[in-house]
Amino acid sequence: MKTQMKKKNTEITNLRKKKYKTLRPVSSGLESILYSPLKALDKGFVRVVDYMGTDASVVQAARVSYGKGTKKKSEDEGLIRYLLRHRHTTPFEMCEIKLHVKLPIFIARQWIRHRTASINEYSARYSILEDEFYIPKKNHLAQQSLINKQGRGNEVDEDTAKEILKILKEDSTRCYENYTWMLNEKNSKEYEKERNSLSRELARINLTLNTYTQWYWKVDLHNFMHFVSLRADSHSQFEIREYGKILLKILSKWTPLTYKAFLSYRLKSAELSMEAIEIIRKMIAGKKVTKSKSNLSNREWKELESLLF
Amino acid sequence: MKTQMKKKNTEITNLRKKKYKTLRPVSSGLESILYSPLKALDKGFVRVVDYMGTDASVVQAARVSYGKGTKKKSEDEGLIRYLLRHRHTTPFEMCEIKLHVKLPIFIARQWIRHRTASINEYSARYSILEDEFYIPKKNHLAQQSLINKQGRGNEVDEDTAKEILKILKEDSTRCYENYTWMLNEKNSKEYEKERNSLSRELARINLTLNTYTQWYWKVDLHNFMHFVSLRADSHSQFEIREYGKILLKILSKWTPLTYKAFLSYRLKSAELSMEAIEIIRKMIAGKKVTKSKSNLSNREWKELESLLF
Amino acid sequence: MKTQMKKKNTEITNLRKKKYKTLRPVSSGLESILYSPLKALDKGFVRVVDYMGTDASVVQAARVSYGKGTKKKSEDEGLIRYLLRHRHTTPFEMCEIKLHVKLPIFIARQWIRHRTASINEYSARYSILEDEFYIPKKNHLAQQSLINKQGRGNEVDEDTAKEILKILKEDSTRCYENYTWMLNEKNSKEYEKERNSLSRELARINLTLNTYTQWYWKVDLHNFMHFVSLRADSHSQFEIREYGKILLKILSKWTPLTYKAFLSYRLKSAELSMEAIEIIRKMIAGKKVTKSKSNLSNREWKELESLLF
Amino acid sequence: MKTQMKKKNTEITNLRKKKYKTLRPVSSGLESILYSPLKALDKGFVRVVDYMGTDASVVQAARVSYGKGTKKKSEDEGLIRYLLRHRHTTPFEMCEIKLHVKLPIFIARQWIRHRTASINEYSARYSILEDEFYIPKKNHLAQQSLINKQGRGNEVDEDTAKEILKILKEDSTRCYENYTWMLNEKNSKEYEKERNSLSRELARINLTLNTYTQWYWKVDLHNFMHFVSLRADSHSQFEIREYGKILLKILSKWTPLTYKAFLSYRLKSAELSMEAIEIIRKMIAGKKVTKSKSNLSNREWKELESLLF
Repeated sequence: MKTQMKKKNTEITNLRKKKYKTLRPVSSGLESILYSPLKALDKGFVRVVDYMGTDASVVQAARVSYGKGTKKKSEDEGLIRYLLRHRHTTPFEMCEIKLHVKLPIFIARQWIRHRTASINEYSARYSILEDEFYIPKKNHLAQQSLINKQGRGNEVDEDTAKEILKILKEDSTRCYENYTWMLNEKNSKEYEKERNSLSRELARINLTLNTYTQWYWKVDLHNFMHFVSLRADSHSQFEIREYGKILLKILSKWTPLTYKAFLSYRLKSAELSMEAIEIIRKMIAGKKVTKSKSNLSNREWKELESLLF
Repeated sequence: MKTQMKKKNTEITNLRKKKYKTLRPVSSGLESILYSPLKALDKGFVRVVDYMGTDASVVQAARVSYGKGTKKKSEDEGLIRYLLRHRHTTPFEMCEIKLHVKLPIFIARQWIRHRTASINEYSARYSILEDEFYIPKKNHLAQQSLINKQGRGNEVDEDTAKEILKILKEDSTRCYENYTWMLNEKNSKEYEKERNSLSRELARINLTLNTYTQWYWKVDLHNFMHFVSLRADSHSQFEIREYGKILLKILSKWTPLTYKAFLSYRLKSAELSMEAIEIIRKMIAGKKVTKSKSNLSNREWKELESLLF
Repeated sequence: MKTQMKKKNTEITNLRKKKYKTLRPVSSGLESILYSPLKALDKGFVRVVDYMGTDASVVQAARVSYGKGTKKKSEDEGLIRYLLRHRHTTPFEMCEIKLHVKLPIFIARQWIRHRTASINEYSARYSILEDEFYIPKKNHLAQQSLINKQGRGNEVDEDTAKEILKILKEDSTRCYENYTWMLNEKNSKEYEKERNSLSRELARINLTLNTYTQWYWKVDLHNFMHFVSLRADSHSQFEIREYGKILLKILSKWTPLTYKAFLSYRLKSAELSMEAIEIIRKMIAGKKVTKSKSNLSNREWKELESLLF
Repeated sequence: MKTQMKKKNTEITNLRKKKYKTLRPVSSGLESILYSPLKALDKGFVRVVDYMGTDASVVQAARVSYGKGTKKKSEDEGLIRYLLRHRHTTPFEMCEIKLHVKLPIFIARQWIRHRTASINEYSARYSILEDEFYIPKKNHLAQQSLINKQGRGNEVDEDTAKEILKILKEDSTRCYENYTWMLNEKNSKEYEKERNSLSRELARINLTLNTYTQWYWKVDLHNFMHFVSLRADSHSQFEIREYGKILLKILSKWTPLTYKAFLSYRLKSAELSMEAIEIIRKMIAGKKVTKSKSNLSNREWKELESLLF
């Protein structure tokens, strides 16, 4: 295993050695991290492996320009903010990024719900998965939330946590060992020549959902931001949020102007319902509004309160 | 469990009892099976839960008609065959179908690669999965293919097969039992009041990939056929092929004319490469062509042979 | 022309005569207008020609139900509002609608920018377009806006308006007459046997952008709402907004609960930027905020003012 | 006009002057033509303005590699051919290209039917279109085909051709002049201070469909090839086919290995129906098959004949 890891690292190092000349626009922020893995969870990572376009490409496309299309930096930034604020999304589709991601299968199942992206996953019909499983940190083992039916609440107590970690480790390990036993690969240590091997596409069905897989994922800047706005959000599961945060960091390096506008108009913005706008108008006019008079549901009232106070 | 199943069956029966009046076109073939589960693998199913359009809708859209747009049956069939042959796909997008599918997670992961469909999956962040796992029949336990790196070869011998089935059953059962133990639900038999429960979104990561999940899946007729052409194909994994065959049967009931054209021009058609066409021309002209002179790779040559002889 | 129109009306009337029995859910609101044209602009229309699903289908899919999945009306409405508020869009993708639309080409070019829909357009390569052009009402002839570079300002004065209408009518008519002259169709009045006809795909390039075309347009409920939220908005061009309003009316008949939630959380909602939230917090806390201290651009400040006061 | 053109050429020239360093893979074929316009029809062009990935990127993604993922050139080529032959399309989605295209509106309306691409079109709501119209060459003025209802037949005779060209030129010119008259722009020669201008979004509706527009168009390699296979095909309209051919040339420069496989398995391949396969089998077995015994329609029989003989 260790030699395999070393080999991978060498491959990555080699990629970072050779520079090419190009006429294309270049993002210096991304060039500085290109190919290098950004660690995620216990054994996962995100690597930027290619990209196309920069902030200037958004501007250039919005102006359908023959040349660079950029003007003064302040004008370009103003244009980018205007486009994002008014949801003129097509210029942001003009940039593209490609990531190599290693992630547990249960996260991959959430991730893939975003359909406007291209994916090449490591095929367990064709190849053999590695013995790597996501085991949460003890302090991430949370109870079912009492408020939010699909969320987490308080931490599990120490004893139960230990028990749970033991189960997770043992079950994934045993399932994996049985997986390799069924595969009975020639170059494995326990290979038994006399015994029939099971096809890979079947053996894998014994693996647990915390097994790591990996894929190439390619997406345009608009859909990248949409992904981040959903997955870096507090409603999403902690584990995928960890990836969301890495993607947010990548965004800041790739297209710094778009990143700033994204914070203002997406990540830290809020959508107010017709009813909530009415309430705020009253509040600003100095009127007192109580929940009972607000016409909002309990949950909406709480959300509004936490936004305003 | 049994009472739950009974309740579900009652719900389905109730849906089949009440008829409504509509001005919309109706597919008698689909009405006859609407809501009823078609069994798939050991514990899965496919249920048609809604649809829009019939063969006549394809014709109507192709003619951008004010009325029904249909003419004589032979003309309509001719038009449908013409559209499919020349890959004029948009009229087939005018019909839509919605299925409720129960399927093992490892199949769900293949299925979802088709992006041009809408999906609502049963959420294991929110709800608890049932203790149902796909356990292959003994005669479906195949060895790794020696020819096709992602395919199946011969059956596994009797003794190994027994061993494998034992593993699959034990591992999925144990993982599931630990899942419910970690969940520690109030209404479960083993509920321990003193012990902290683990949130659902985390507990599920201990489940194996053969656990059944379910979803609503909605797709238009064009993409439905594309799915079937890929998944009813011999290159796809046996387990998803079983679903592919059910979808093919549904197609025959939904749009009989389109179904027939689909057999001719998709499912049982073949694409010939530039090189293969050249070879066939020679063969028909009475010339002898050997592999060595054919300019084809081994595999392509074999594929051509099996097509022609 | 008149007999052709009459024939179309007869076809539509015939479609409304024959009722069928179905097990599928039925929207009584849509059944009442199915097939009937809703007038748009001077010569356009929107006709609902098919649909799938109702409010109940959204609920059913969100609950991945075996049966209807509906509970008390208030609970269903609460769920629909929750889904829309939190942008859980997939259940809304489970309903589908198909429209027959007649619209000027320059609007068709805006409309088609929405990619997540299916379209069959009347083909001017294959058929001959009718001599119908959009001629705006006098009071819709607006000057270029002085504020908004892509908007309309005040009405054009009476004399210029008359001149403009004359131009629009004459130019589209002349172009159309030359179109038919070039086509030189056998069954046209001016057919000259000796003269070569020009192919349809070429002759049409002489037509003006206000010529009417028509298409079948099919879209799911989620994308239908997205379209309406953009096109019924005041930033969109008046002419497509007229269609947007008709679609909004259709929504109210199709899925009344979703329609109400749509008004609250989309059409009449507002998105506040990170900076705007900060300002509102201060205002509610009784502090005075001026534009100069607000950190907002001129336009953003105006937009915020018009929202709050 | 001339100074404007000169300015554009200078902008393009400037873009080709400055080289940057990058760690990304580089396509030398595309670098050699980057930014330079490739002429299309009489006044149109295609310019490659950015790209991501090369043949090696397809291989790298297919192997979900940590490093370059490439092996011997023959192995890589074999893999690319295998992927294309078996329609494993996702690795080809890993490359991306961005074009700046100038094209007549009637072609833009065909082009945009390909939905899996990103587009930023020059906005005639916001800006003023130039006075450039597509005027076919005399020898491209074809009669309506007698066989194919949406195709072209023989050339139009000399006299009619002259007449047609006169019409096309006069009508587009007059419509354009009236467009500028209605716009009444301050910096135009004929500006009349006293007269109200018409908003741009309205004035444009007077333009003819052969007016040139332009856009940025971004698409992945898989969908690029799909576009080319449809639009470089003899069934597509001559004018868009001219663009299709330019895209094919771009493909040959961008990804030479993929280009070669594309010729074999897409552009010059043929799909045989179930019935056609049966006929070919008989022919190769030395049996004589006549149309009457073939079970094929007239048109299918002719297509098969032209393929085989």
